[in-house]
Amino acid sequence: MSAEGRNGNYPGKGIGQPVGVALLGMGTVGTEVLRLINDFSSNLENRIGGPIAVRGVAVSDLSKKRPVLDNFPDIAVTDNARELIDRDDVDVVVEVIGGIDYPRELVLAALKAGKSVVTANKALIAAHADELSDAANEAGVDLYYEAAVAAAIPVVGMLRRSLAGDQVQRISGIVNGTTNFILDAMASTGMGYDEALAEATRLGYAEADPTADVEGHDAASKAAILASMGFHTRVTYDDVHAEGITNITAGDIEAAKAAGFTIKLLAICERLVDDAGVTSVSARVHPTLVPNEHPLATVDKSYNAVFVEAEAAGRLMFYGNGAGGAPTASAVLGDLVGAARNKIHGGRAPAENPYANYTVADFGDVPTRYHIDMSVADRPGVLAEISRRFAAQNISISAVRQEESGDDSRLIVVTHSSLERKLAGIVDELREIDEVKAINSVIRLDA
Amino acid sequence: MSAEGRNGNYPGKGIGQPVGVALLGMGTVGTEVLRLINDFSSNLENRIGGPIAVRGVAVSDLSKKRPVLDNFPDIAVTDNARELIDRDDVDVVVEVIGGIDYPRELVLAALKAGKSVVTANKALIAAHADELSDAANEAGVDLYYEAAVAAAIPVVGMLRRSLAGDQVQRISGIVNGTTNFILDAMASTGMGYDEALAEATRLGYAEADPTADVEGHDAASKAAILASMGFHTRVTYDDVHAEGITNITAGDIEAAKAAGFTIKLLAICERLVDDAGVTSVSARVHPTLVPNEHPLATVDKSYNAVFVEAEAAGRLMFYGNGAGGAPTASAVLGDLVGAARNKIHGGRAPAENPYANYTVADFGDVPTRYHIDMSVADRPGVLAEISRRFAAQNISISAVRQEESGDDSRLIVVTHSSLERKLAGIVDELREIDEVKAINSVIRLDA
Repeated sequence: MSAEGRNGNYPGKGIGQPVGVALLGMGTVGTEVLRLINDFSSNLENRIGGPIAVRGVAVSDLSKKRPVLDNFPDIAVTDNARELIDRDDVDVVVEVIGGIDYPRELVLAALKAGKSVVTANKALIAAHADELSDAANEAGVDLYYEAAVAAAIPVVGMLRRSLAGDQVQRISGIVNGTTNFILDAMASTGMGYDEALAEATRLGYAEADPTADVEGHDAASKAAILASMGFHTRVTYDDVHAEGITNITAGDIEAAKAAGFTIKLLAICERLVDDAGVTSVSARVHPTLVPNEHPLATVDKSYNAVFVEAEAAGRLMFYGNGAGGAPTASAVLGDLVGAARNKIHGGRAPAENPYANYTVADFGDVPTRYHIDMSVADRPGVLAEISRRFAAQNISISAVRQEESGDDSRLIVVTHSSLERKLAGIVDELREIDEVKAINSVIRLDA
Repeated sequence: MSAEGRNGNYPGKGIGQPVGVALLGMGTVGTEVLRLINDFSSNLENRIGGPIAVRGVAVSDLSKKRPVLDNFPDIAVTDNARELIDRDDVDVVVEVIGGIDYPRELVLAALKAGKSVVTANKALIAAHADELSDAANEAGVDLYYEAAVAAAIPVVGMLRRSLAGDQVQRISGIVNGTTNFILDAMASTGMGYDEALAEATRLGYAEADPTADVEGHDAASKAAILASMGFHTRVTYDDVHAEGITNITAGDIEAAKAAGFTIKLLAICERLVDDAGVTSVSARVHPTLVPNEHPLATVDKSYNAVFVEAEAAGRLMFYGNGAGGAPTASAVLGDLVGAARNKIHGGRAPAENPYANYTVADFGDVPTRYHIDMSVADRPGVLAEISRRFAAQNISISAVRQEESGDDSRLIVVTHSSLERKLAGIVDELREIDEVKAINSVIRLDA
C-alpha cells in the first residue's frame, strides 16, 4: 500500500451527526482546548457540519479541581485513557499529554481503532512519525499535528498543503520561544546567560527544568518535523544535529552586536545537491549569527518566526506566538475541525508522505560558515601563518578583524561557506598551533 | 441544502488514475503553471496519488508561439474554452484568464459539469463568490482560490483551515504590490507620485493601465475575499470602501516620516461589536499612517504582508511575494494538488461557508482615526476655536502639532478613534470656518 493510504473513498457519517471527541491530557493546552470548544461550539458546528461532542477527558490526577469541566457536566473524567479511546462513540482523539512512550501507545491504539488523532506532541512526532503515519494510513484515518511546531503559526499546514505544488529549498526559523526570550534578554540588557535564564523562569517562559529548550532538543524535534514535511523524506529527531545556547556568553552577544549581527537559535532545514548532482537533506539546530537587517534578527521576546524558500513561491515568512496555552489550543482546534469535517463529509487530509526518501546528510557534509573569535600572539607573521592554514585546507576567508587586547591580540575570522567537517577541522588545528593562545568562541553564521 | 454541500461521501476515482486538467489562459501565470507541472511532474504524482494529465489549454490567440507547449506535444490548444471544459476526461479546470464576465461563465459551466475549479481571479471571486460557491456545493466539487490573494502567501488556506477553530478579530495587510512599490519609492527617494508610478511602470511593477492598482480596486477585491473567509460572511467587492493612493503627495510622506509614520495602502477587515452587543463586519482599503515600529511599516518594495489577529492564536503575520508569475503559479499548483487529491482519494475541501451572515457595516459606522493637516490663520484663539469644534462633536484629540509657515500656521490634529462619519463631518465643518485656510490632507491612522 502506498504511503498515501488505501484506494480512495473514505466515507463520512453525514451532516448533522455529532463527532465524538476524547481529550487526553488536561494541562494548560487541554484546558484551553475545552474552553474553546465551549466558547465556539456553534461556530465549530457550522464549520464542521455537525456538533463536537466531548465524550470524556483522561487525566492523571482525578482529585484535582478543574473549573472548565463545569461546562461539560455529562462527560467522563477518567484516569483510564485506553478505555476512553475505545468507546464506540469516540471518533477523534486529541492528545495533549506530552512525553513519548505513553502517548505513543495511546495514539497508536486510537489510530488502530479507526479514530483520527490530533496531537500537539512534537517529541512524539519527531521520534515516531513513521510508525504513526503507517497506522493512520492502514486505518484510513487522519493524523494531524499543526500545534507540534510553532503553535498557531500554520507552518505544518503550509508545507502539507499550500506548497504542495512547489519545491521547498530551505526552511530556517526561530522555533523555540524560551531560548529566543533568553537571547533577546541578553542582547537588550547585556545580562549573562544564567541571569537571563532566571528571568525567563521567573516570568514563566522557561520551565523548572529548562534542558529540552536550552539544549536545543525541543527545536530539534521541530526541525525534524519541518524537514520531513518540506522534503517528503523521513527525518527523525536523531537525524538532527542540535546544539543549545548554554555556552553563549554576554561577550559573544556583545561581539556579535559590534559586528552587525544578532545571535539566534535557528533550526535550519536544507535541500543539498552535491557535485555529482545527488540530492540529500539536512536538519540542524545551533546558535547562529544573523545579520541585523535580516527579518529573523528582529524577532524579539518569545516570538517564533519561520522562513521558507521555495522554488516558485520565493521567500515566505510566518511570524507569531510559538507557544502558550491559547495559541497552541488554536492550532489543535484547527486540526480538530479538519479531522471532524472528514468524519462528517468523508475524505482524508494529506498524510505525511516520505516518497522522496532523500538521504539525510551527515552534519559534517553540510556547508556552513564559521565566525571564529580567538586570542593570538601579538607579533608579526601571526596573521600570515593563520591565513596559510586556512588556505592549505582550501577554506576561503570572508573577513578578518584584529584588535589589540593587552599582551595578546584578538583575531576574528569569518569564513565563506565550507563543509562543516573542514571548518571543525581547522578549528582543531588552530587550537594546536603556537600562534593561537585561545579559541574564545566559534559560532556559525547564516541567513 | 447547507452551504457545506450535500451529505458526505464524495468518492474518489482511485490511486494511480490520471487527473485530467484543462488550463484556461496562457499569460504569465498560465505559462508558469505549465512549466511547474512539467518540472515537478513526478513529485506532483507522488503527492496527488495519480499523474496530472493536461488535456488542453484555451488561449485567445492561436497563432502566438508558446515554447512551453513543446513539453506538451499531445494536448489540445484551442480558442474554444467551453469545448475543452466539457471534455469527459477533464476533472479539474484551472482559470487564469482574468476579467469577470467571461471567466464567470466558464467557471460556472465547469462547476455545473462536476469539474473542480482552481482560479487565481480575485475580481471574479470578490464579485461572484456566492453564485460560484453555490454551484460548487450543488455539484459536490471543489472551488479553490489561494492565488487570488497575495499569491503564494497562504492566507486563504490559513483562514479556511488553520484558524477554523478560532475566532478571527481583524485582518490588516498590504495586499497590493504595485502601490507598495510606489509608496516605498516615494518614501525612500522623496520623489512624487507621478515619478514613482513611472518608475514602477518602467520596472514592470505597474501595468500600462494602473487604475485597478492605484485606485485600490485590486486591494478591495482581496479585502472582500479575506473578510468573507475570516468572518464567515459574504462580503463582496461592492461592500468594500476603497480609496487609492493617487492623492498622496511627497509632502504627505515627508510629514508622516517626520511624525514617525509610514504611509501604506492597507486592506483592513474588522469584526465590530456595537454598544448593544450586535456584531457586524467591515472591509476597507485606504492609505494609512502606520507607526514606524509596526512590522507592516518595514514591508518594502512590492512585497505583501498580512496580519491576522485571532482570539486564541493572537497576532500572526505572513510575508512574501504577493504577485508575479512564479509565486502566483505556486499557489495555483498547491490548489491543483488539493483538488486533484480529492478527485483521486475522495472528499472535498472546506467550501466558502457564510453561515455567520453578519451585517456588513456602513463605512460611516466604522471607528477610524484621522490625521488632519491644515493651514490655519496665525492669530490667538485659533487652536481654542478648533478644539471647541472637536469637543462639540465629542471627538477626542490625541495629539496637536502647530508649526509656523509664512503668514499662516500649519496645524496637525490627530484624533482618537471615532466613527468615520463623525470624523468626515468635522473635516467638512473645519473647511467652512474662517480660522482654517486649507485642509492640506486627511489620512487615516491605524495599527
